[in-house]
Amino acid sequence: MPSTITVADYLFTRLRQLNVESVHGVPGDYNLSLLDYVEPNGLHWVGNANELNAAYASDGYARLKGLSALITTFGVGELSAINGIAGAYAELAPVVHIVGTPARKSQQERAKVHHTFADGDFQRFALMYRHITVAQAELSDPRTCAQLIDSTLQQCLIHSRPVYLALPADVVGIRIDATPLQTSIELPRSLPPSVDAETALATVLDRIYSSQRPMILVDGESRAYGILTELQQLSTITHWSTWTTIFGKSCIDESLPNFRGIWKGSAASQHDKDFVKGRDLILCFGPHFSNTNSYGYSSVPDAKISVHFMQTSVQVDGQTFRDLPAKQFLSALLAKLDPSKMTKSPEEVVLNGEKNGIPSPPGSAPLTQDHFYKFFDKYLRSGDVILAETGTAGHGCRDFKLPPHSLLLKPTTWLSIGYMLPATQGAGLAQRELHAAGRWSAAHQPRTVLLIGDGSFQMTVQELSTIIREKLNVLLVLINNDGYTIERCLHGWNQGYNDIARWKYLQAPAFFGANEGQGGEGGYRASTYRAETWDELEKVMAEEDGEEPKLKMVEVVMDREDAPITLKGLLQQQKDAAAVAQK
Amino acid sequence: MPSTITVADYLFTRLRQLNVESVHGVPGDYNLSLLDYVEPNGLHWVGNANELNAAYASDGYARLKGLSALITTFGVGELSAINGIAGAYAELAPVVHIVGTPARKSQQERAKVHHTFADGDFQRFALMYRHITVAQAELSDPRTCAQLIDSTLQQCLIHSRPVYLALPADVVGIRIDATPLQTSIELPRSLPPSVDAETALATVLDRIYSSQRPMILVDGESRAYGILTELQQLSTITHWSTWTTIFGKSCIDESLPNFRGIWKGSAASQHDKDFVKGRDLILCFGPHFSNTNSYGYSSVPDAKISVHFMQTSVQVDGQTFRDLPAKQFLSALLAKLDPSKMTKSPEEVVLNGEKNGIPSPPGSAPLTQDHFYKFFDKYLRSGDVILAETGTAGHGCRDFKLPPHSLLLKPTTWLSIGYMLPATQGAGLAQRELHAAGRWSAAHQPRTVLLIGDGSFQMTVQELSTIIREKLNVLLVLINNDGYTIERCLHGWNQGYNDIARWKYLQAPAFFGANEGQGGEGGYRASTYRAETWDELEKVMAEEDGEEPKLKMVEVVMDREDAPITLKGLLQQQKDAAAVAQK
Repeated sequence: MPSTITVADYLFTRLRQLNVESVHGVPGDYNLSLLDYVEPNGLHWVGNANELNAAYASDGYARLKGLSALITTFGVGELSAINGIAGAYAELAPVVHIVGTPARKSQQERAKVHHTFADGDFQRFALMYRHITVAQAELSDPRTCAQLIDSTLQQCLIHSRPVYLALPADVVGIRIDATPLQTSIELPRSLPPSVDAETALATVLDRIYSSQRPMILVDGESRAYGILTELQQLSTITHWSTWTTIFGKSCIDESLPNFRGIWKGSAASQHDKDFVKGRDLILCFGPHFSNTNSYGYSSVPDAKISVHFMQTSVQVDGQTFRDLPAKQFLSALLAKLDPSKMTKSPEEVVLNGEKNGIPSPPGSAPLTQDHFYKFFDKYLRSGDVILAETGTAGHGCRDFKLPPHSLLLKPTTWLSIGYMLPATQGAGLAQRELHAAGRWSAAHQPRTVLLIGDGSFQMTVQELSTIIREKLNVLLVLINNDGYTIERCLHGWNQGYNDIARWKYLQAPAFFGANEGQGGEGGYRASTYRAETWDELEKVMAEEDGEEPKLKMVEVVMDREDAPITLKGLLQQQKDAAAVAQK
Repeated sequence: MPSTITVADYLFTRLRQLNVESVHGVPGDYNLSLLDYVEPNGLHWVGNANELNAAYASDGYARLKGLSALITTFGVGELSAINGIAGAYAELAPVVHIVGTPARKSQQERAKVHHTFADGDFQRFALMYRHITVAQAELSDPRTCAQLIDSTLQQCLIHSRPVYLALPADVVGIRIDATPLQTSIELPRSLPPSVDAETALATVLDRIYSSQRPMILVDGESRAYGILTELQQLSTITHWSTWTTIFGKSCIDESLPNFRGIWKGSAASQHDKDFVKGRDLILCFGPHFSNTNSYGYSSVPDAKISVHFMQTSVQVDGQTFRDLPAKQFLSALLAKLDPSKMTKSPEEVVLNGEKNGIPSPPGSAPLTQDHFYKFFDKYLRSGDVILAETGTAGHGCRDFKLPPHSLLLKPTTWLSIGYMLPATQGAGLAQRELHAAGRWSAAHQPRTVLLIGDGSFQMTVQELSTIIREKLNVLLVLINNDGYTIERCLHGWNQGYNDIARWKYLQAPAFFGANEGQGGEGGYRASTYRAETWDELEKVMAEEDGEEPKLKMVEVVMDREDAPITLKGLLQQQKDAAAVAQK
């Protein structure tokens, strides 16, 4: 390694060291010189169609690979991306947002350059980003660039949330000392043993040994804490009934015999309600109790019988033990855990059910929301990344019985519709990179499956073009139910504002430049299908995909007045209200 | 009028009083109850495909009608829109951004609801908006809603810049006193006469009477000050050479005999440079000297010979007179101005040239950027609204000789690519409303003309669907030059990051649901064309449009290495640099 290196090379070397292989973003005149360094550093540049989409894609990529990088230009670019970064903050996706800013001369002279308000203020946008990132740095002094880059990236990894780096155009090519690159960026070392930690461990073990009717509840922040392997181990050792939240779904292998599905609180079956009500201990990992991740808070475990494992603390019976990083604490717990001291509750025998199966309606019947997800379930396969957009798909996907080594991205708290299509691009690319590196288990060509409603699809549709350009292996299921059905269920059953324009959805791949057709030699192909009945859908899904990456787009037509079972109550209320209003 | 009224009705009544007839936005669960009040108040709801597009569309609408309204939901919606609102701030478009926020109960309990970071903080997004709006109000106390709405709307009008209204879902339907609605919202009254104002007026008049070689320079903030009529009058009375900036283009009737075009500073012809250099007085209205509006500051008039008319102050020879609202001061000036005391400079005879004409290349030659705008010029007609997107179109449009009663929206300072397509939707709708109200002069069916490059088109393409749904009369000229040519001219001539995906652009209208074809009875139609040569383009443009609104989309193919003349120097530099790098 040379003894000096440019700031841009330093930054991109760090990203490479942290397994980032692709960079998302959009060029703009304040970042063009920075972009010159991307590909020479062995990074693949994904030029997205716009910055919000690029941010969403970076979020999807980060959720698979543990880190992603997004490059936008100052002002216009970073503000277009801001909602995507806010979503990454809300749901713990570690995105490094690098903003190419005007040269220091312009900033210091308060020049009235474009992409500003021509008032000499260059700090507004960075101030806005302070609300939605866990660390920010302006790389304006070459003496501190290396240190600021390193500490900012480390904060990104620690919190699994976005960070913000502002890089003035004239700093990009300045040479700095390369020595720090010889030491890799890592999470902070474990804390030394402490009396408090010992007390916490003893307290938790005591709860575990004394429990007669325990259960495990896995929530989605667990992924960000890096404890999925430990959780798998815990569930396997204890045989305890293991549930997830919505966010936690796919954080644990759903084929485990003691896996029970999503704990749905007020929306659960009576059987499940009785079961959970009967617990005397709930070990809850990575809690994230937004209303939409907890069935309106109804699935939040009773604090009195719970142990909550948070990012750096553990709560037992309302008492908080601090400075206990989740991974370190859980490892210590597993090391000390003596299974012979644990009860074996009878409930553990309650079995992981069969995979969802064939729909009951006849094959020629029209597709319905509720059965659709049960039907579709059987076509999911090991190694799939599945994305289900906010809306009916985000509800329906909760009952999938996921195959091993699959990953489900689903709406949790931020719920920004339009997120999932660009996220499919980012996740699909990350999946391909992981597979190429031998870090993704899949029997077949790894596949990215997107289930999305028509309203959401319209928001960010142009990113289908990037999926095509990147030749990703994607199954896109477009649920055409003529508008914002999820919103109709919430309010405004018959209101025009829940209508959307009627597109010819299946023309999308051709419009965005894909080669069409089933056959043909080499190259990337798109094929499109439409299904209104079970028979039609079955025919599409049964088709042999082959091993070549392709875009398979299926327009699934469903009634605008139909919704998954969990939304049916709301739907009926709105329908009734509309009927009353019309009288 | 009833004595009480709901908060939502109050707000929408105010907007109607201020000539807002359509509201842009996207539904979301925190604004659905608010949307119930839109159409009953006689407002047309435009459901956009996403929030950024809705913000851009609102900006376009506001630039024609003097006020617009945008409704988004909390968090996800408002953040998606934020770049559009920032652009409206930068370039003085008065947009009222209404955000439907969670009910006060949720906020006061710091509930972990969706579209937040599940941390009980509901103020982050409003804080972000403080950076890009001139007034903000949270309508959480019914006692102050009316007053806050009124003062916020007034600030929007005064500054011609965006404002922010947060309206909790549970406040929407609360009844408040309706009495204030009987008094309309107006700009503040004129200031009473003052010694300072008299001194300023005398000073300016003295400069005017003593000048031998004066000129008028109209910049774009003049539109926001509401002084276009006065400027037209001033130019007509004085016969002085009248120029504009880029932003100021179309603020003055270009058929005036003393109209001279854009003063291009360092990019001007030697003749123009000599002319401006020879001035002893420049009356400059609405100055907005960003680098991109002033040819890198080279067209900024010398302060020593200038009078700058700003929003509420006048600068003469470096001295600032304050508290002189532009319209009031200019009216007073016009009232007092005695033309007999003014010089008649010989230069005023230098004439407004002919309209640009036929291109010199043969009809079968390929289209070139530089000639394209001269050629296209002759097809512009009275009453057109023309939008030229950042990029080659934004440069090329500077040499249009605009017909009377036309309006040109062009890139000035914010330069967010992707803006112009949604802005076309907003502007086209505003144009139609103004025409219907007898406030838009046009011989034919008023037409909205968009000139846009392929890279920009991809950013916000889905808003073409709203143009179709709204049945707007649009001529869309898509300049297909295979990527970000404007950026190639700035940096990275051969770099892959300036490439974009190759779409089948002309499939867009059909994909987005338009009926195709030239003929057919009734209904809204789209027709598509492709032109690579002058003959082909002429044929398309010569076609009779008829009086029915329609979407006419022309894909104009130009070389990726071609640019308007003002960019040619930059282009050659980048080409040379790339050639050197390859050696």
